[in-house]
Amino acid sequence: MDEFELIRKYFTRASADPDVLVGVGDDGAVLRPAPGRDQVQVIDTLVEGIHYPRELSAADIGYRAVAVNLSDIAAMGARPRWMTLALTLRAADPAWLAGFAEGLFEAAGEHGVTLVGGDTTHGPRTVISVNLTGDVEPGRALTRSRARPGDRLFVSGHPGDAAAGLELLQGPAARQPDAERLVDRFRRPAARLELGARLAGLATAAIDVSDGLYGDAGKLLAASSVGGRLDIGRLPLSRELLAVAGRSRASDYALGGGDDYELCFSAPADAAEQIAALAAKLGLPLTDIGEVVAGAGLSCVENGAPVEYRHAGYLHFGEPST
Amino acid sequence: MDEFELIRKYFTRASADPDVLVGVGDDGAVLRPAPGRDQVQVIDTLVEGIHYPRELSAADIGYRAVAVNLSDIAAMGARPRWMTLALTLRAADPAWLAGFAEGLFEAAGEHGVTLVGGDTTHGPRTVISVNLTGDVEPGRALTRSRARPGDRLFVSGHPGDAAAGLELLQGPAARQPDAERLVDRFRRPAARLELGARLAGLATAAIDVSDGLYGDAGKLLAASSVGGRLDIGRLPLSRELLAVAGRSRASDYALGGGDDYELCFSAPADAAEQIAALAAKLGLPLTDIGEVVAGAGLSCVENGAPVEYRHAGYLHFGEPST
Repeated sequence: MDEFELIRKYFTRASADPDVLVGVGDDGAVLRPAPGRDQVQVIDTLVEGIHYPRELSAADIGYRAVAVNLSDIAAMGARPRWMTLALTLRAADPAWLAGFAEGLFEAAGEHGVTLVGGDTTHGPRTVISVNLTGDVEPGRALTRSRARPGDRLFVSGHPGDAAAGLELLQGPAARQPDAERLVDRFRRPAARLELGARLAGLATAAIDVSDGLYGDAGKLLAASSVGGRLDIGRLPLSRELLAVAGRSRASDYALGGGDDYELCFSAPADAAEQIAALAAKLGLPLTDIGEVVAGAGLSCVENGAPVEYRHAGYLHFGEPST
Repeated sequence: MDEFELIRKYFTRASADPDVLVGVGDDGAVLRPAPGRDQVQVIDTLVEGIHYPRELSAADIGYRAVAVNLSDIAAMGARPRWMTLALTLRAADPAWLAGFAEGLFEAAGEHGVTLVGGDTTHGPRTVISVNLTGDVEPGRALTRSRARPGDRLFVSGHPGDAAAGLELLQGPAARQPDAERLVDRFRRPAARLELGARLAGLATAAIDVSDGLYGDAGKLLAASSVGGRLDIGRLPLSRELLAVAGRSRASDYALGGGDDYELCFSAPADAAEQIAALAAKLGLPLTDIGEVVAGAGLSCVENGAPVEYRHAGYLHFGEPST
């Protein structure tokens, strides 16, 4: 059983609270604390040695802990505001804490987020959970569940860069300029907050790409009760990724690598022009990578022919079912 | 450096956000998501082997993970509403998860709390963080910082029971009736939500007793920039605790044991009658244990004579400074 099924099985219960507009199962919850304002809450955890290598600097870890949550807020089309931090540490090392706090406040400061509370505990390995609260105009939160057959599928930025960067980070090649740019994409994910905010009302569904584009696009489609077709030839592979990994491995990184923190979203076919204008405005590639179809599952095509993709993205428990 | 100083040093920064009414350093943050409604957010973590023994059942762990956060919400005088859960597990054991979820939803259901999101990750030891959101009438949240010289200090319930229960839980005596009642106080803490809600407007300051009454009362006094005098002879020691531990050890459990999840609060001396009426209404002892004085620090008296208390409560890092 993978993490997705596990959460669904044990932690999804019907809510009697009319102010819970979206509960467990999306990138974030949508809540209504007061009439006239909706709120988005997300929580995401980094475990040392699982979500980042021991080699990562304390400042990068602090930055990432906030950025991965900002990415969930972006995927909901909300504006981030407040966060709480649960920090489990082996020991209170002042140098590590100073660096961690520096990175944490850097990421928070870039988006006007205030740390409002926390809890520090002792444990055998570093575990960092951040709960982030955002706000959004009533009824405007983006969810995963409204993609429709005929919609186009898009992805922002260059998926695969961060996953390649993570591998390079631990190897001897990390100092080459192309490699360095990929490593930076892992160290400092750029949450797509402005994109998310502008997609509200334009996209039909969105998800942040944390576990691999193929797997996360599949989750969006499943949540919308539709299927999809992804054109591998359209994947926006970066020059650096192609230089370092070659085309075939680059596609694998882009489809299954994880840690991108880009947005994958669906939009009606006639929104193509608006999306192109948005990409130009933000200076961020927004690439049409396929289509939403009736049915279930995400299939892949390459050069017009069906291909089977066998990697299902990063799963926290168990093995991907192939 | 203890946890308290550590958090203050690295994670307290001035906020530019006018909607953050109370930030890091109290039992919870007080936020204003929209005019006309204040919100309280708390986060608390349980680490296996540190905050609970391996012997505790999965259902009790789930219950406690919610209850310790409910207790923070109670200390702020708020009504709990929504929670998110970050769960780090060694493996996805369906029996453990089923039990954990049962206890979690039991505690949540008792107070109308909805689980709205979560994140499950893999790690070497179980770590459970719950972020709980509550709401409160604007300006009515209870903080730690408004105790005034001349106020009386109170504690609810029977501090020390849970700490004794935790020790008994791991020993052979846990099945004796008195011991069993103490063990239950550890297994199933009763967050004092109704008390907290009714103290808003009556108490001047409040804190939940999680790390030991002496230490937590000291934090309330420090946050209020006042001192205090605690009368050890007035401690409301339960019959069961006295039977199992004897008077002297019972006082130690009550002052330094932790895990009580009672409320310690200050109130003007002329509120004594109202507080007695509240105790009767709730069927919960609310005991005057001392007074707030000008100055700093918490001193103890017993039979009218000063005594030195040397245990500073549970600290997550480092050693108590004696």
